[in-house]
Amino acid sequence: MEKTQDVEIQNGGVQEESKASRDGSICGYDSLQHLLKENLKPQHYQEVSRLLLGLNCGKPLNRVAFPESATALSVEHGFDLQAFRFQADKELLREPRVVRVGLIQNSIALPTNALFSDQKRAIFEKLKPIIDAAGISGVNILCLQEAWMMPFAFCTREKRWCEFAEPVDGESTQFLQSLALKYNMVIISPILERDINHGEVIWNTAVVIGNHGNIIGKHRKNHIPRVGDFNESTYYMEGNTGHPVFETAYGKIAINICYGRHHPLNWLAFGLNGAEIVFNPSATVGELSEPMWPIEARNAAIANSYFVASINRVGTETFPNAFTSGDGKPAHADFGHFYGSSHISAPDASCTPSLSRKRDGLLVTDMDLNLCRQVKDKWGFRMTARYELYAETLNNYLKPDFEPQVITDPLLHKRSF
Amino acid sequence: MEKTQDVEIQNGGVQEESKASRDGSICGYDSLQHLLKENLKPQHYQEVSRLLLGLNCGKPLNRVAFPESATALSVEHGFDLQAFRFQADKELLREPRVVRVGLIQNSIALPTNALFSDQKRAIFEKLKPIIDAAGISGVNILCLQEAWMMPFAFCTREKRWCEFAEPVDGESTQFLQSLALKYNMVIISPILERDINHGEVIWNTAVVIGNHGNIIGKHRKNHIPRVGDFNESTYYMEGNTGHPVFETAYGKIAINICYGRHHPLNWLAFGLNGAEIVFNPSATVGELSEPMWPIEARNAAIANSYFVASINRVGTETFPNAFTSGDGKPAHADFGHFYGSSHISAPDASCTPSLSRKRDGLLVTDMDLNLCRQVKDKWGFRMTARYELYAETLNNYLKPDFEPQVITDPLLHKRSF
Repeated sequence: MEKTQDVEIQNGGVQEESKASRDGSICGYDSLQHLLKENLKPQHYQEVSRLLLGLNCGKPLNRVAFPESATALSVEHGFDLQAFRFQADKELLREPRVVRVGLIQNSIALPTNALFSDQKRAIFEKLKPIIDAAGISGVNILCLQEAWMMPFAFCTREKRWCEFAEPVDGESTQFLQSLALKYNMVIISPILERDINHGEVIWNTAVVIGNHGNIIGKHRKNHIPRVGDFNESTYYMEGNTGHPVFETAYGKIAINICYGRHHPLNWLAFGLNGAEIVFNPSATVGELSEPMWPIEARNAAIANSYFVASINRVGTETFPNAFTSGDGKPAHADFGHFYGSSHISAPDASCTPSLSRKRDGLLVTDMDLNLCRQVKDKWGFRMTARYELYAETLNNYLKPDFEPQVITDPLLHKRSF
Repeated sequence: MEKTQDVEIQNGGVQEESKASRDGSICGYDSLQHLLKENLKPQHYQEVSRLLLGLNCGKPLNRVAFPESATALSVEHGFDLQAFRFQADKELLREPRVVRVGLIQNSIALPTNALFSDQKRAIFEKLKPIIDAAGISGVNILCLQEAWMMPFAFCTREKRWCEFAEPVDGESTQFLQSLALKYNMVIISPILERDINHGEVIWNTAVVIGNHGNIIGKHRKNHIPRVGDFNESTYYMEGNTGHPVFETAYGKIAINICYGRHHPLNWLAFGLNGAEIVFNPSATVGELSEPMWPIEARNAAIANSYFVASINRVGTETFPNAFTSGDGKPAHADFGHFYGSSHISAPDASCTPSLSRKRDGLLVTDMDLNLCRQVKDKWGFRMTARYELYAETLNNYLKPDFEPQVITDPLLHKRSF
């Protein structure tokens, strides 16, 4: 391990972005929307927002005020607060079903060479005031980032990080259960799960905690990356829980964990099961995926007529032992900058601005779940989808002797190319 | 019909955007990228481009020069020219397979109350120099916009516009066949098709013309909108040609016509059949879909590891008889501004800037089709897709007694919401 990396680990295990040139970023801005707002004239920013955030159709995105006590917590503990409200039409036969959703993005709390128990406890202590701020602000459903109770150590391929894994009813769940009960809040807790009853198998799991502090159920990540430093198939396998939708006190929700967002069929299946909000707790770095980040979530919201809540962790995590990345470059101790940028996409193609690319934050957003059906009635994607055609396509594709439908130019032999 | 609308029809049938306040646009900019480039400092524009166009990873998007004779045509006939080149890695075992793709977006040529035969001939005459410019520039595969040989009259619900429909080997195809042969160019021609052999049935069809002027085959639009003024199910039915991929002299291509872009399964099926470039000839207006426009195409390119070429027509088309739009507003004679903005998305999440929102244009883009497999090898979406899970999901969903997978909070009766 190189000395400079030692120093950075002592500095909290989290590098400032300016040190992380592998990010590809050239200037110290906070978020895309912030950069645009600061540097464009108001009328230009308004038009750019119409195109980039879908903020037209006479339904502006309003800001929502936080209680003073939540703001005080954010100042004392150094995290950002942002809140917005999506709009929907009033209906004649249904009351609005407004739900307040909270998302938390954060960096880890201690260097990754600290005692594992200390690291986990420090993350609990760091998250407590942010969860309190969400509770005080009346959040109904709160979601944390992927594997929030540990550093994202899968890049190392070292098995010792498996020690962080916990049963579904382990200490991380217990920590959140008391807060869920206290604030009458559903909490989605994405953890590394150890499945004791099935021979210590490890999963990447989201535990859904009800607003009475009860465990409603769990969902295990369906699609596992083998890309870049995300050697996650080394640690856990494809989930075996299907595509459950959890009917909570505040609406029907589902969880598409991280890399699952690249799979349109995964998004589709949660929609077919009736999800109104799909959470995408993630951990992903700038060089690999940043231009995809706003595209895939918004597309899923549009295509499936539900809300999508996207969360990504923040900062650069440095590990004790250097590792290679399969790209021919020298060994190094971090795998890039987690760019935060958590945000929420609506089924009508609108979108909130994102949280910071660099700082911890709580995003609170009010949404009327009636908008899902309103968009379905307007666009009719479910009715025009021709699922029978695609069931047949997939059934055929699964056959080992599948032949694609190709029409070859009979004059191809004349090719001049 | 109101008098002002009469006047506008006399003015070419195409309104300037400034007259079309229903577009929602507030300023007279040319395209999103143009607005950003003109108004941001270079270092900010570079960072915004990294995020919005995916132009990072050391693979800048290069501009390509046009031959002087093509530029002369563009000046003489008043259309824009833009050209770019996507980059791919060099491989050790395969030569690069660089294909030059051309897209044409245009407004109609005569008022919609002119003789139908005159309208069609005027469109031919308008397109001829743009197609010549493409041919002179060495374009290998050229695609025109949806139903390019007529005004997009479906908003009127008047059946007389069916007269524009032609057999696959009709006059529009014949016009393009000679140009395909002349320039050794594959041409995709999206028309309103009249299927004589099946009792005059009307389809929305893309005819694929080979580089020797031969007709390789056709694809009929799979998904039909019933949204806003797009009353297209009044005119034609869901396509019966599956998801063919056409193996041409320049690569394997497919066509996802207009509203099909809202259906991830439609994109998927073309991918499963081996498409390397999927064209999306469209006709869509600002108020309805503009914020979705860059999202869906780019998501399809990312999710399916192929290139997507998006085309939208330009201008506001005014019709002789006023019509209502099912939105409670008074009858009117146009249904909004076709915002152009044709562009090409690559499988690595990068994207070309768009053509103008207002003017006719030819976009030329070089792409190495080897990039498709390179991205597949990097991200592994096909391997991690678990299609067997989704075949089962769809098979279940199709049953009339399908029950969604829902886990209900057992304490739901205690609900405080």
